[in-house]
Amino acid sequence: MIAPEFEDFLLSHMETYLVPSDQLAIIIDTHKTEHVMLLLSANGFSRVPVITKDNEYVGTISISDILKYQLDHQLDDESFAKMDIVNMVNTMIPTIGRETTLTEVMNKLVDWPFLPMTEENGEFIGIITRKTILKAVNALLHDFTSDYTITDKKKDA
Amino acid sequence: MIAPEFEDFLLSHMETYLVPSDQLAIIIDTHKTEHVMLLLSANGFSRVPVITKDNEYVGTISISDILKYQLDHQLDDESFAKMDIVNMVNTMIPTIGRETTLTEVMNKLVDWPFLPMTEENGEFIGIITRKTILKAVNALLHDFTSDYTITDKKKDA
Repeated sequence: MIAPEFEDFLLSHMETYLVPSDQLAIIIDTHKTEHVMLLLSANGFSRVPVITKDNEYVGTISISDILKYQLDHQLDDESFAKMDIVNMVNTMIPTIGRETTLTEVMNKLVDWPFLPMTEENGEFIGIITRKTILKAVNALLHDFTSDYTITDKKKDA
Repeated sequence: MIAPEFEDFLLSHMETYLVPSDQLAIIIDTHKTEHVMLLLSANGFSRVPVITKDNEYVGTISISDILKYQLDHQLDDESFAKMDIVNMVNTMIPTIGRETTLTEVMNKLVDWPFLPMTEENGEFIGIITRKTILKAVNALLHDFTSDYTITDKKKDA
């Protein structure tokens, strides 16, 4: 459990955590490999969410996932280029919901650079990233002491 | 400036921040594009440091950097495969030194997923990542209150 004072402070900066889907690069699961490779490499995105055309979350995709699939299946460039990206979507990253606690979010972010957030029906909401959490943590480390006094227990005794 | 009590706590967990070079995947700047592409895609690394054979830091490389270079220079696959990776190394990420303050490290990590640390002579030491910082921050959020008492200033007044 995170100390309640820290949780209160961080949650008050919560609006900055979630990057909503309309501010993200997103791939539709029927996009072709060729198109996705171009989009990822031209923009320098390392991993982006994949959704259906009905905004249902499917997983994520990286250039590594795509190239590894081609290698593993020994596919020639031409036929591979026209394949739907849904075949190589990565579903390793755990999703979170609106009710996920801050403790759980921060623990999971140790293992994953971002976490996709979905509604209970699977609709994609956006992502929480290490970057956005780090911003809030920086605010905590700098500004917490303007609202709270910290006392060393050992010096108190 | 980070509140001194937080800085003390985080610095006491400092040994976990730095991932030393011998625990990292690293590319030598004379490695060929083909080899580097295979290494990155087979292992799912999104970006790795590039050094000379004498352990001098050069920059970092990602699959995106490589593919973008090929696109920008309109190179055919065959000649491209045999090029030295040093041509497409990315030098955007700022480096830090042993004397860089925690405040500066944490501010820079908002913009970059990891920071390469070098000696003053340019020798590569290792990296500090968002992931390792997040681990220490989680320890802070959970364990800080066993050593320190936090008092709300507003309630005090």
